[in-house]
Amino acid sequence: MRTETRERFNPDKLRIFSSKVLQAEGVSKEDSDIVAEMLIACDFRGVESHGIAHLGPFYVTRIREGTINVSPKFKTSSSSPTTASMDGDMGLGFVVGYRAMHDAIARAEQYGSGFVTVRNGSHFGAGSFYAMMALPYDMIGLALTSTWPGVVSPDGTSPSVGTNPLAIAIPSGKKPPFVLDMATSVVAAGKLEIARRQGTSIPKGWAVDGEGKPLTDPNKIKYGFPPGGLVPLGGEAVTGGYKGFSLGVAIDILCSVLSGAGSNIFLSKLAEVPGNPYNHFFGAIRIGGFLPIEEFKKQMDRTTEAFEALPTLPGVKKIYLAGGPEAEIVEERKTNGIPLDERVIQTLKDLSAELNIEYDLK
Amino acid sequence: MRTETRERFNPDKLRIFSSKVLQAEGVSKEDSDIVAEMLIACDFRGVESHGIAHLGPFYVTRIREGTINVSPKFKTSSSSPTTASMDGDMGLGFVVGYRAMHDAIARAEQYGSGFVTVRNGSHFGAGSFYAMMALPYDMIGLALTSTWPGVVSPDGTSPSVGTNPLAIAIPSGKKPPFVLDMATSVVAAGKLEIARRQGTSIPKGWAVDGEGKPLTDPNKIKYGFPPGGLVPLGGEAVTGGYKGFSLGVAIDILCSVLSGAGSNIFLSKLAEVPGNPYNHFFGAIRIGGFLPIEEFKKQMDRTTEAFEALPTLPGVKKIYLAGGPEAEIVEERKTNGIPLDERVIQTLKDLSAELNIEYDLK
Repeated sequence: MRTETRERFNPDKLRIFSSKVLQAEGVSKEDSDIVAEMLIACDFRGVESHGIAHLGPFYVTRIREGTINVSPKFKTSSSSPTTASMDGDMGLGFVVGYRAMHDAIARAEQYGSGFVTVRNGSHFGAGSFYAMMALPYDMIGLALTSTWPGVVSPDGTSPSVGTNPLAIAIPSGKKPPFVLDMATSVVAAGKLEIARRQGTSIPKGWAVDGEGKPLTDPNKIKYGFPPGGLVPLGGEAVTGGYKGFSLGVAIDILCSVLSGAGSNIFLSKLAEVPGNPYNHFFGAIRIGGFLPIEEFKKQMDRTTEAFEALPTLPGVKKIYLAGGPEAEIVEERKTNGIPLDERVIQTLKDLSAELNIEYDLK
Repeated sequence: MRTETRERFNPDKLRIFSSKVLQAEGVSKEDSDIVAEMLIACDFRGVESHGIAHLGPFYVTRIREGTINVSPKFKTSSSSPTTASMDGDMGLGFVVGYRAMHDAIARAEQYGSGFVTVRNGSHFGAGSFYAMMALPYDMIGLALTSTWPGVVSPDGTSPSVGTNPLAIAIPSGKKPPFVLDMATSVVAAGKLEIARRQGTSIPKGWAVDGEGKPLTDPNKIKYGFPPGGLVPLGGEAVTGGYKGFSLGVAIDILCSVLSGAGSNIFLSKLAEVPGNPYNHFFGAIRIGGFLPIEEFKKQMDRTTEAFEALPTLPGVKKIYLAGGPEAEIVEERKTNGIPLDERVIQTLKDLSAELNIEYDLK
């Protein structure tokens, strides 16, 4: 872990501040609290790309633009005991996601498994948050979302599928839970933005131009606009690029087609159509439906320890399972508080001044 | 598609012949018919690595060695309406897989979704077969299996996880169903064997030695034996290798830990322990539980057509969705029969002579 030199903040105060900001923008207290909890949970885990940094520039902006509905009327329909479909009415993705995941968990509590799709959602932050909601219930959690098409298939020239991330969380005993949260592209779209901001080149294997040739200049590519785009996990066809592409398509189908919204390929900039790419798929599976939870957790601990004991290349501390590094960051931040970038601190100061909310975050 | 010059065979005759061979080895007629059906289904789809080529050298050999139990007593336990756990009693993986998948489908028919884990399974052929069993029921099918650890994590030196494939099948209307069947490593273990047999090198990015350096000589690596091994989907850490690795670990957990068998990391040759790596996870989700099936199928057709209409790099026919190329092969083989390699034909002739089963396969 790099040495942390940034200013530290009190997580509870950050959470309350975030909720007040959203309430000032017209979101109900209940919904504001949900969003604030998720933003700070991301910062706690070191997933800073989806934390409080997004509060002003992203969510407040979208609320003011009117692309996020602050008073959505969710509608749920269900045609089987373990499945349901929700209409998010373009509300905050966090709120509809939170409710949909709780619905899936309630079905899994009763029947062993539960799945809820959401159409007309919006950007829902980090999928891991929803997947991890299943952990206290001794369930495996699953959260998928569709995004704007910006990924080019092997042999293709234009974006056709989103970075469509998948998140899966699996409980353990004393060891950290297994928490995988990954884009099905080589990297998430935000990595291009970071490279542009920092003026650095991107590694070969992240993006291609319209002739399938590797791009290393992040300024030569705009996510979602052809020609070219991000590369699916696996890269070229010879190293499994069709696998990452197909995972992305499967997630598009589970989120967009199964929810009734329709595939996001029709939102490709090829066709220059407007639309909302954010549809979701949430799932929960109760472990006790297969074997006693104590036995499962004991085996998860044993398994995690076996991976951590593997030999490594020189200079590598250990082989972590997914979620392992984040669990260490959480422990450190519980003690020392949440570090924020200067740039993010400034957006909070601006919101404080503009909305007349006290800036007392230490 | 390359020009096919191999000798063609009648699929029904191949299926009956395969069943008779297994019956001669002590497998019941009912179980033999299931295995034969699956082997020929693979050859129909062009998945020849898992077809009748495996009958003699693989399944008959294992039955004779006693590592496959021809008279297994399956036990199922269930602690929720939609989940169950089966003990495969080291029987033919095809048979326990077939029964487990039907159990998952029956639960999904009643409750909307169903999941069944299997411990003490055996090599079950192509996962796509089980996933596709859900299609006639208008369900999404899922089949996962754990395998011998032969894949090295990024930053690691020794194999710790299997090629652990995942298969997902999603119905459509007039277009072919979406059928993804992929190892979570860059390539399946069989690709090393093929390169060795053909005396060719393997592409950079498929395998590494014990120092993390790329291997291109297939003779320098033996699957499952350290140092070195196959590379997870994504390759190095910078191109997402931890994603493929983590998918493989997630599948190990769902198959091996959730079934009660215990993680396959304990079968790593590091520890030189004997054991059975084949545990499975089957799932079915009923589409009608979310939206009307006719609407879903119409959207799947529309989506597939949109992908197929995408612009491509020069020399590429079209962008297929997963399962698209196999569907074209099925159509061709329905008309012209199933082509077999000389080497495979010889194993069938040998079995015919040895077991006194008529060789009439045209």
